[in-house]
Amino acid sequence: MAENREVTIYDIAKHLNISAATVSRGLKNSPAVSKNTRKKIAEVALELGYQSNTFASSLRSKTTKTLGVLVPRLNSHFMSSVLAGMEKAANKHGYNLIIAQSLEEAENEKQNADTMFNKRVDGLLISLAYDTRNINHLEPFFKRNIPVVFFDRVYSHPSSISVVINNYDAAYKITKHLIDQGCQRIMHIGGNLLRNVYKDRFDGYRQALKDHDLPFQDKMHLISELSEKDGTAAAKHILSMPAAKRPDAVFSANDTSAVYCMMALKAAGFHIPHDVAFAGFNNDPISKVIEPNLTTVDYAGETMGNIAVTNLINHLQGTGNLYSTNSITLRADLIIRASSLKNEVQKTK
Amino acid sequence: MAENREVTIYDIAKHLNISAATVSRGLKNSPAVSKNTRKKIAEVALELGYQSNTFASSLRSKTTKTLGVLVPRLNSHFMSSVLAGMEKAANKHGYNLIIAQSLEEAENEKQNADTMFNKRVDGLLISLAYDTRNINHLEPFFKRNIPVVFFDRVYSHPSSISVVINNYDAAYKITKHLIDQGCQRIMHIGGNLLRNVYKDRFDGYRQALKDHDLPFQDKMHLISELSEKDGTAAAKHILSMPAAKRPDAVFSANDTSAVYCMMALKAAGFHIPHDVAFAGFNNDPISKVIEPNLTTVDYAGETMGNIAVTNLINHLQGTGNLYSTNSITLRADLIIRASSLKNEVQKTK
Repeated sequence: MAENREVTIYDIAKHLNISAATVSRGLKNSPAVSKNTRKKIAEVALELGYQSNTFASSLRSKTTKTLGVLVPRLNSHFMSSVLAGMEKAANKHGYNLIIAQSLEEAENEKQNADTMFNKRVDGLLISLAYDTRNINHLEPFFKRNIPVVFFDRVYSHPSSISVVINNYDAAYKITKHLIDQGCQRIMHIGGNLLRNVYKDRFDGYRQALKDHDLPFQDKMHLISELSEKDGTAAAKHILSMPAAKRPDAVFSANDTSAVYCMMALKAAGFHIPHDVAFAGFNNDPISKVIEPNLTTVDYAGETMGNIAVTNLINHLQGTGNLYSTNSITLRADLIIRASSLKNEVQKTK
Repeated sequence: MAENREVTIYDIAKHLNISAATVSRGLKNSPAVSKNTRKKIAEVALELGYQSNTFASSLRSKTTKTLGVLVPRLNSHFMSSVLAGMEKAANKHGYNLIIAQSLEEAENEKQNADTMFNKRVDGLLISLAYDTRNINHLEPFFKRNIPVVFFDRVYSHPSSISVVINNYDAAYKITKHLIDQGCQRIMHIGGNLLRNVYKDRFDGYRQALKDHDLPFQDKMHLISELSEKDGTAAAKHILSMPAAKRPDAVFSANDTSAVYCMMALKAAGFHIPHDVAFAGFNNDPISKVIEPNLTTVDYAGETMGNIAVTNLINHLQGTGNLYSTNSITLRADLIIRASSLKNEVQKTK
């Protein structure tokens, strides 16, 4: 079809009966072209459906003002907060974000990385999929000096920076809080240990047990994808244990599985926190809706997104150097709520 | 910097001491080039950081195998379900999605549309921002015959298709259900009437009142962005009303504001559903966590995403014609839970 042909500056020139060079200058808003002509050029460009040749101009200027973001999934309050923070920081500096999700699969992540590379993003922000084992798929970015910022689920690489929260510290504190409440048999519902976030939370949990002379037991460590179903399955697992062997506390690596585990145990007649205390991670909205309200870790997603993008843009604009920093670690505060307060007099919040 | 220069097929040719024409054919995986040479070309292309010229090849083949998705926000269970459905359908057909969010602002939506257009997506899927008043920013797509699919928050345009649920019908049914439970003063917490989803829900609510000889009262219709804060504010508004004038039921256009309104009323000593019955919309995870569980409308987000992308790809591949259909309307089922069951004997689920 005729309309499907690429509209060029020559078409605009012909339409206005002016030279292509004038159109080219006009499209760049050059003062060498009269304001009136620039206006006409812009109108005809829109009318004819001219696509500004960002690709060609990016070859010259080396910039597209677009940042790519690769995420595992778009289904959590945490990730939507991160992306809102990124969006605000990007817009402030005149950048646009394009986002792709891997649905937690390494293969999709690889394809999305290719897409972002070929869409010529100026920089890449990435949080790894559940089962990504290496970052070979990011080599094209490193080769071309396109800066890469890891956030949340990170990977150590000399030419990139990581923005994380202190997962180890937060998990240590939350476990210690449960121990302070008199809990002795604390179960941990964790994620894939390939990912730093779950490894660090597990390590913090284990170290807190050790420092308080409590034994770590393998069967008290469940690994899952931390979904609603996984929370319900954890409750079934607890119910299948002999009463004396059951945990007196559960620390889950996210709020979703903590909440669904709580709901199933409540339905089975358990009193929370008396029979089992609960703590989650992320401070998702559901943590304030479940009764009793869930003790959790406040994950400053918006701050993380803002810092990741601001550092990336500063690097691109030459006002900062990403590669001089290895990682940025954000504070993560404990939020103590009724689900873990066995000992009412110790109620702190 | 030397590494920052665009790597061309000539660099690859020089590196391998073969002709550029052979490299070009090799990159297209042409059988005219030996398998071994094709492998070497691919390796060197990766090593040097060659960016396949999707732009130029899209000029020839008219396809980038990328679809753009513009959404208001990425912060709801509904939107993440839609995007998961889109992603699965796209992957199945070898397409990649790139996503951008407007944070509910028309100005951002316009910029994102420009970005998608200039990234040369093969098709666009869009759900409008809260305050978008026209779709002039989509004109470039229509001019270039790049197909546009509206979903959820739609806009009528002769060269596009809309995928929606039957908002009117669902709102009518949920209002009728509250009336059947004996409720006479039903408040509606709704959204901006510019957006079809909120207009249709409001109309369904109002028609159900009318058909049951109940008066519609302006002060029983709150308009907000349906956030957590808006839910809490609605509860404050109810508490400020004289007891006899207060609603005996609340139908909210989303679950978030219903849940936060419920929590505030519960904290003020109200019994739900006895004092005020509640119904929401979307079947968000929180609707199953709040006590009593929230009556709502099951919004089949994943199905919507799947259908929108499948129709778009069928059109692109010539196995369907988008423009012959005006809109696709999906069924939305009522989910009756304890928050609206004043009349226990009528309990249906």
